[in-house]
Amino acid sequence: MNPDALASAAARLARQLDALGRVSDEHGRLTRTFLSPAMRRANAWVAKVMRESGLKVHEDATGNVIGRREGEVSGAKTLLLGSHLDTVRDAGRFDGALGVLLPIAALADLRRRGVTLPFAVEVIGFSEEEGVRFASAYLGSKGYTGQLRPADLKKSDENGVTVQQALDAFNRRKFEPAPMRLRRSNLLGYIEAHIEQGPVLEKAGRAVGVVSAIAGQTRGRVTFVGRAGHAGTTPMGLRRDALAGAAEFVLRAESRARKQPPLVATVGTIAATPGAPNVIPGRVVVSLDIRHPSDDRRKSGLRRLLAEAREIARRRGLTCQWQQTQDNGAVACSPELSAVLAQSVRATRGRALKLVSGAGHDAVVMSNRMPVGMLFVRCRGGLSHHPDEHVSPLDLKVALRVMVDFLERLAKREARHGQQPS
Amino acid sequence: MNPDALASAAARLARQLDALGRVSDEHGRLTRTFLSPAMRRANAWVAKVMRESGLKVHEDATGNVIGRREGEVSGAKTLLLGSHLDTVRDAGRFDGALGVLLPIAALADLRRRGVTLPFAVEVIGFSEEEGVRFASAYLGSKGYTGQLRPADLKKSDENGVTVQQALDAFNRRKFEPAPMRLRRSNLLGYIEAHIEQGPVLEKAGRAVGVVSAIAGQTRGRVTFVGRAGHAGTTPMGLRRDALAGAAEFVLRAESRARKQPPLVATVGTIAATPGAPNVIPGRVVVSLDIRHPSDDRRKSGLRRLLAEAREIARRRGLTCQWQQTQDNGAVACSPELSAVLAQSVRATRGRALKLVSGAGHDAVVMSNRMPVGMLFVRCRGGLSHHPDEHVSPLDLKVALRVMVDFLERLAKREARHGQQPS
Repeated sequence: MNPDALASAAARLARQLDALGRVSDEHGRLTRTFLSPAMRRANAWVAKVMRESGLKVHEDATGNVIGRREGEVSGAKTLLLGSHLDTVRDAGRFDGALGVLLPIAALADLRRRGVTLPFAVEVIGFSEEEGVRFASAYLGSKGYTGQLRPADLKKSDENGVTVQQALDAFNRRKFEPAPMRLRRSNLLGYIEAHIEQGPVLEKAGRAVGVVSAIAGQTRGRVTFVGRAGHAGTTPMGLRRDALAGAAEFVLRAESRARKQPPLVATVGTIAATPGAPNVIPGRVVVSLDIRHPSDDRRKSGLRRLLAEAREIARRRGLTCQWQQTQDNGAVACSPELSAVLAQSVRATRGRALKLVSGAGHDAVVMSNRMPVGMLFVRCRGGLSHHPDEHVSPLDLKVALRVMVDFLERLAKREARHGQQPS
Repeated sequence: MNPDALASAAARLARQLDALGRVSDEHGRLTRTFLSPAMRRANAWVAKVMRESGLKVHEDATGNVIGRREGEVSGAKTLLLGSHLDTVRDAGRFDGALGVLLPIAALADLRRRGVTLPFAVEVIGFSEEEGVRFASAYLGSKGYTGQLRPADLKKSDENGVTVQQALDAFNRRKFEPAPMRLRRSNLLGYIEAHIEQGPVLEKAGRAVGVVSAIAGQTRGRVTFVGRAGHAGTTPMGLRRDALAGAAEFVLRAESRARKQPPLVATVGTIAATPGAPNVIPGRVVVSLDIRHPSDDRRKSGLRRLLAEAREIARRRGLTCQWQQTQDNGAVACSPELSAVLAQSVRATRGRALKLVSGAGHDAVVMSNRMPVGMLFVRCRGGLSHHPDEHVSPLDLKVALRVMVDFLERLAKREARHGQQPS
């Protein structure tokens, strides 16, 4: 790929990200949720870009937009590439969109240069990953892979519309969950490029990195109950202050995670009742989100932390209760796909930093059906889910170069494999 | 006071507290706010009880209900007794009401026995102390003592009605703040009986106690600002977690107060933003309420605590800001009135426990105009501002006996003084 062509392709990609970032359900800020009017416009817009890059496009029954290029040999396997096209409220324009537009740009470059591939490629713009409209994430990739369950379809949005109803309306007929269109034995795997949404690449001075695993995650609530009391009339020694207990817990969560990297533990919400400046809080609920690439270490970290919560409560005359709301195992990325990605990174940009994804991605759902690999792209300040989310033009160029190299490298590997008796 | 008469007077007082506790603006729970329909019914009901006890009743322009009994000598000074008739939402029935009905019951007993007093007495049911309707406390006692300021009159309730408008409507003409009706030189002082609203008397096994001072109080907000971030993708070492900083502060407030009794420090509210389980809080605001009977020690405690907040913020890469919203100096109770109260407690019930009031009371406002004394009555579990607020029948009897003794004892003292050249 010559430098001029790369530069102009990267500049086009940047313009595309800007344009797609203006397709919004809200005026003046980017919000695009599952099956919304803006999502339909975005799908149509992406479909056009896909067609211009030589892909054959269709939309599936869960609103995913899919562009396919057939392999050069009959019976070729399929490589999937993609990410999501929905956004959080007041979002940045790279989260999701980058992982859809980047492989399209890479395929456009191969086409321009007449590079053939011994496998078919599908680029997928998933219709739902963020869980904004239905507080239920991954509806797009679940639909694509035949993993939608009745429980998913029953969730309702803030207007009381269920997923089932929204999909019925979208399809203009009764939606029925369908099994996956492609045979698993015919899949090479799924590759997702995504902004890191964290500061590790920036700290390490790297434009891109290869994801080794997606951390498992447990989420829940800890409730401390003590006794509300008058802030002026209750001496310190006679208090059973639920907030003081919760504050100790917040600090224990922090120090436990610090002791045990790469464990991360976060208290993101806290509610104290009755909640008046002159009343000692009698009840405090905090959220806990704890993640680790090893399921065992995540579970043991959580166990220890909850034991500390009980110890805090006992010492302070409080009660303490844990309510788990979510528990996802870690996902290991495919060593083979990751090795090829790492080779492409090294060929483009020297050392290939391996890192763990602390956030969930469509790759989590895809990993139930096929090997997955992920390429992370540096974002400024690690900032995401914010209009200031930013990937530099230079990093876009690196990411595009890596993606092109990856496709060509995988093509060579597959061509070799194809020559071997299987 | 013979035991049978005392028992029946105390039982009547208990019934009166029950009855007044049913005069509410809300169905099924006690809520009675400034100038509300329930407050007008309560005033009429109290006026009737006052009249039955031989008092001459009027209502003043701020809605206070006042029952007066003239002194037996011409030019006699006046002793004021009372508390407030408004309540918090979902209140108990003793907070405030006890301090109005108890002295009426005591005066009824004196009248029954034909005991004369060398001073006039006014029992006042103040119309506003809790600050519920206008987030502005003490409107009743401020009105009685001529301390209402234009700023007080401009406050508005949740419907946008100002204090001025509410008082205009109540008076059916333009309300004008008036100076105090009684001459300061003619006042003996103000005595307020009130439930303790704390656990000190219960812990000490005492039915009543004498308040030595009302703690001074500073209130405000501390804001910690760090950087919001993704709970999964931001390693512990790269976080600037505003909630972790605030949690440290909560614990420092607790330990500073524990080190420096009778200092009390309370964080009653906490708000973390953006406030999602998977986002590191970037900004946390906590309330702080700090009280001490010595103004100097309160101020030095606050100074040290805010220095600790700044140190926490510095160490964690946060910013930290203090915004003061309230600052009331401590009020010392009159040594003379308190000495007489203590004698009455000792005569009734052995040792007279002296204690500090951590809560503010109408006595705070009254103390700007005259000597004040306060009698605290034990409440079960220290619980107040709650429907389970409770004073035992036995403690009511003790309180009534003490109040009767106090009036007779003060009468004797005043009679002696009156014989001396002044």
